[in-house]
Amino acid sequence: MISVTSLFDPIDKDLLTLTSNLKNLISARHPILGAAAEHLFGAGGKRVRPAIVLLVSRATMVDQDITPRHRRLAEITEMIHTASLVHDDVVDEAQMRRNVPTVNSIFDNRIAILAGDFLFAQSSWYLANLDNLEVVKLLSTVIRDFAEGEIKQGLTKFDTSLSLEAYLEKSYYKTASLIANSAKAASILSNVLPEVADNIYAYGRNVGLAFQIVDDILDFTSSSEVLGKPSASDLISGHLTAPVLYAMEEKPQLKVLIEKEFSNEGDIDLALNLVYESNGIQKAKDLAANHAQLALKHLDCLESTPSTKVLMELPEYVISRIY
Amino acid sequence: MISVTSLFDPIDKDLLTLTSNLKNLISARHPILGAAAEHLFGAGGKRVRPAIVLLVSRATMVDQDITPRHRRLAEITEMIHTASLVHDDVVDEAQMRRNVPTVNSIFDNRIAILAGDFLFAQSSWYLANLDNLEVVKLLSTVIRDFAEGEIKQGLTKFDTSLSLEAYLEKSYYKTASLIANSAKAASILSNVLPEVADNIYAYGRNVGLAFQIVDDILDFTSSSEVLGKPSASDLISGHLTAPVLYAMEEKPQLKVLIEKEFSNEGDIDLALNLVYESNGIQKAKDLAANHAQLALKHLDCLESTPSTKVLMELPEYVISRIY
Repeated sequence: MISVTSLFDPIDKDLLTLTSNLKNLISARHPILGAAAEHLFGAGGKRVRPAIVLLVSRATMVDQDITPRHRRLAEITEMIHTASLVHDDVVDEAQMRRNVPTVNSIFDNRIAILAGDFLFAQSSWYLANLDNLEVVKLLSTVIRDFAEGEIKQGLTKFDTSLSLEAYLEKSYYKTASLIANSAKAASILSNVLPEVADNIYAYGRNVGLAFQIVDDILDFTSSSEVLGKPSASDLISGHLTAPVLYAMEEKPQLKVLIEKEFSNEGDIDLALNLVYESNGIQKAKDLAANHAQLALKHLDCLESTPSTKVLMELPEYVISRIY
Repeated sequence: MISVTSLFDPIDKDLLTLTSNLKNLISARHPILGAAAEHLFGAGGKRVRPAIVLLVSRATMVDQDITPRHRRLAEITEMIHTASLVHDDVVDEAQMRRNVPTVNSIFDNRIAILAGDFLFAQSSWYLANLDNLEVVKLLSTVIRDFAEGEIKQGLTKFDTSLSLEAYLEKSYYKTASLIANSAKAASILSNVLPEVADNIYAYGRNVGLAFQIVDDILDFTSSSEVLGKPSASDLISGHLTAPVLYAMEEKPQLKVLIEKEFSNEGDIDLALNLVYESNGIQKAKDLAANHAQLALKHLDCLESTPSTKVLMELPEYVISRIY
């Protein structure tokens, strides 16, 4: 399995600059938010989203250096992502994210709402000051899609009539929209032709979907450090993802358990076993692999650069997490 | 005392259109948010902020009709304002606002955070689609100022070293920034000269400050329907406003009570009496009147229209609430 650190080699320094800029942008203004920023932008994050922005920037600038606006766009992308995580954690009353305590658990809901609002507000402001209306439109669509996705997710809890299409739409809002639109925006800052920008968008959309599907599979297959077994947190909270949607087609009893919202003791273990007995996980893996392959097809428009090479390897890396 | 309904006569129909558009913009997409929207944009709101946008629009278009973009800007202004109120109420754990239960109290924090995020997100998106970078910048500054103001307010609770300047800055972030920047944006959509736009901004800034100071005075002088006496909610929660800042200069004991955060029973009544015994409220009234007068001076740049007349009467109306 490729490590993400070596994968991002061509933009190593760019990512270090990004992290230090992000900490400065937030903490310079407010000590309290500074503590949250240190926590949010500190060690641990994989920075996949800004990395894609930086890679697309380098791949489309070819022999020239990337501009301060490309860097700022990468920072905005991470700020929007982080803001959405902070509010998500308040909404979901989450205590931990990736083995790190959430802002709402370390501080309180008040600070977490303010920190999220502040990050959204700062990113809107930096965005406007990139002085490119098309880029502003692309990223404001992302912010809207996030809100849309969160609401859709809330409305479809334990809803066994959720279709695979609706699941993919939700995943687009939640994850792929940011990756697709910010990647496209990076290419626009490099003044590429419209058809190149559209291909970059399609690449980002498919990588983003693969990424989300893989995340949803890992919730069933990867042992959590705390539990020593998969947490299946999505299923428990009623978020039906690809493995469950496929499994329900084979196991009608699973549907019944979900509709009863696991009201009897042991229902969750029963449901989990039905998912594992079915081909749901395998079918979800195929779905992710399919989107990873689709992504690749959209990179022919790019010249051969070290960053282009990484963009070509990224879909495979995403998929390698489930193999 | 002039009633606000008759004051806004020239834009009566515009405000009706605005209210129905706002309800549609939100509720068309989500039934749950629809309920919140009905609650938020339903009867009761005075719509002062979008009214100023519409009045500036009409006053700067003179004989021509205002454009759909002027109307959209007024809607965006009210959406941003409402979003900030919804999140404020979660942060402050408020149960009531202007005698109406808050979104967080009727629904829950989850829905209130999502509704606020959705309103901010929708407004960013509509904003970008006004296709005017200068307007995008002005309004994104407002969103940033809101977050800044909320944080500043949180950090200066019970802080008796707060200066009048810092209080005015906080009031600018909280209230005047939206009024000033959205009014300026309306004039920019009418293609006015830069110096006219700057005067409109200065008008909005001063009206906004007067508005906030008056609100802060009313917290000490106006009987709440529920309590039958002034609620003094700002003082109780440690938000030091103009009447208190002035009163502290005369009554050192008030400072002590605040610094102890009213830890003994009866401290709040004691503190309130000190405010009433001092000239704090009168000095705050003078401060508000001063900003109302300053506002007026910036309207000479406008041609004489029915809307200009209302803009000229508005500062006096704001002040009349405390006399």
